[in-house]
Amino acid sequence: MTELSAYLETAARSIDVMIDRYFVDTTGELNKASAHLLAAGGKRLRPAVVMLAADAVKPNSSSEILPAALALELTHTFTLIHDDIMDGDILRRGVPTVHSKWDMPTGILAGDVLYARAFEFLMRANATDEARGRAVTMLASACAELCQGQHMDMAFEKRDDVDEGEYLEMVRKKTGVLYAAAAGIGAVLAGGNSRQVKALYNFGLNTGMAFQIQDDVIDLLSPPEKSGKDQASDLREGKQTLIWIRAREKGLDLSHYKRSLTDTEINAAIEELEDAGVIAEVKATANELVSTSAKHLALLPPSKERELLKEIGEFFVTRSF
Amino acid sequence: MTELSAYLETAARSIDVMIDRYFVDTTGELNKASAHLLAAGGKRLRPAVVMLAADAVKPNSSSEILPAALALELTHTFTLIHDDIMDGDILRRGVPTVHSKWDMPTGILAGDVLYARAFEFLMRANATDEARGRAVTMLASACAELCQGQHMDMAFEKRDDVDEGEYLEMVRKKTGVLYAAAAGIGAVLAGGNSRQVKALYNFGLNTGMAFQIQDDVIDLLSPPEKSGKDQASDLREGKQTLIWIRAREKGLDLSHYKRSLTDTEINAAIEELEDAGVIAEVKATANELVSTSAKHLALLPPSKERELLKEIGEFFVTRSF
Repeated sequence: MTELSAYLETAARSIDVMIDRYFVDTTGELNKASAHLLAAGGKRLRPAVVMLAADAVKPNSSSEILPAALALELTHTFTLIHDDIMDGDILRRGVPTVHSKWDMPTGILAGDVLYARAFEFLMRANATDEARGRAVTMLASACAELCQGQHMDMAFEKRDDVDEGEYLEMVRKKTGVLYAAAAGIGAVLAGGNSRQVKALYNFGLNTGMAFQIQDDVIDLLSPPEKSGKDQASDLREGKQTLIWIRAREKGLDLSHYKRSLTDTEINAAIEELEDAGVIAEVKATANELVSTSAKHLALLPPSKERELLKEIGEFFVTRSF
Repeated sequence: MTELSAYLETAARSIDVMIDRYFVDTTGELNKASAHLLAAGGKRLRPAVVMLAADAVKPNSSSEILPAALALELTHTFTLIHDDIMDGDILRRGVPTVHSKWDMPTGILAGDVLYARAFEFLMRANATDEARGRAVTMLASACAELCQGQHMDMAFEKRDDVDEGEYLEMVRKKTGVLYAAAAGIGAVLAGGNSRQVKALYNFGLNTGMAFQIQDDVIDLLSPPEKSGKDQASDLREGKQTLIWIRAREKGLDLSHYKRSLTDTEINAAIEELEDAGVIAEVKATANELVSTSAKHLALLPPSKERELLKEIGEFFVTRSF
């Protein structure tokens, strides 16, 4: 096991303990609905970024701000619950989505409860009042942008002419800003100066965007036994990912793949995209974002945690699941 | 015009100015959807309570914390947008509800945007970091309880045996806690001590509950030309209001009114409930809550604003619209 995976596992365990204590071990149908997806697992990557950012700014400070790390997971989970309603998705993390296990109103409310509790837990971090206040503003601002990102993502479904700038703006809002807030909040709560907070915010923003682009690559390339998801679902749905957009720019017409596909057809599509250089280009874009994020990290003093953050960025664009 | 109505009008105008500036004057479909119900009017009672509570604790302090007053209106509006989706309501404040004018996903997101911006604006109040932190915790906690209240309210629709204790708990959560938070937040941001904050919180809690009970009385007694709503809709739907619950306790069976009703039939129902003493008892319960709220107010130093808060409580249970 690498040092990074050991760290991620330990971080996830600390978050899981809090989830069990404050959410799973509860009564009432709405509380159960709020806990459902939280308890269904997840890699707890955003909390890990909060903790690493804190430790990178001030050694061993992450244990003081664990509730803020949890707050980021609560925020992420509230967006998943609401997105599942909007997208009509039935399964998530191998369990029924909240609105399909309960109903739509309970899904809306379960998300709204976690939304509130994210701010409650953020305020429970052991930090100065001023730092907590800045963290609240960062989280609120991230939440507003997340909504804009999800709205753009849905609007894109009705279009076939999304350009790269629009796509990157959507990814920045939908995925980037929450990683940015995670790193920025960790830094601010640990007492980081504004240069450090900004550096970590930008680190999170760039790695978060890279994460999403890699997700699109995984969707196309990874067989279900590796990714745990249906292969090439984006292609079959004609989703305006960076792969689709770059292919279009190169004159490739992927619209004939918008239907159910055999494995052979998926492989043919992959070959077509590889031959045209699309996959390599898209991967290069993700790698560039990770390089940019590393440059922001370089503004911090050297530390084990700074290295682990760098590794997280690299992990984001090399993972196949 | 009474002093109270003059105050409420001025307060509403200050809030409307901010709404125009930060929400109406904006671009993008999601921002328009978020602004839609905010711009459709409303009495801005919760912001007025924030402002009066602040001034009652520290003269002329409300102008410093206007963004926090707006935050309470944003919170209230986000709950209306989400509730309308859950309840399938088409009209609100004389305009189409957000999800009916746009669609369900946009309704969820429009509410989620206002939810975030409530916390953003709360943090823009001119107050100490410590006070703002306490305000954030109060608002977050109120939001979590609001969700519980709405969930109880919906669960009650499937039952005909709700008791008074359950009803009052629902009303406390669904309506009381946001008025409580409004008054408590005004007090805390103005630098009130913990006794004052608690007194104003309890004032808001009790008046908020009285407000909701009076809403149920208005639904039954007020003709549409006064209330602006259909008369006796709760009765026709068999809604478990305090009127229904008290009637049942007295052995009155109202279930034959669960259908469309003529004006004559509505009047017959009112007479039946008046003869049995139900209306008087329910009004007495609302009045008691207002008396309790006045006792909490008495813990504050005398001031014009303290009197206006008292009058708000009285207005809540005497209004017929």
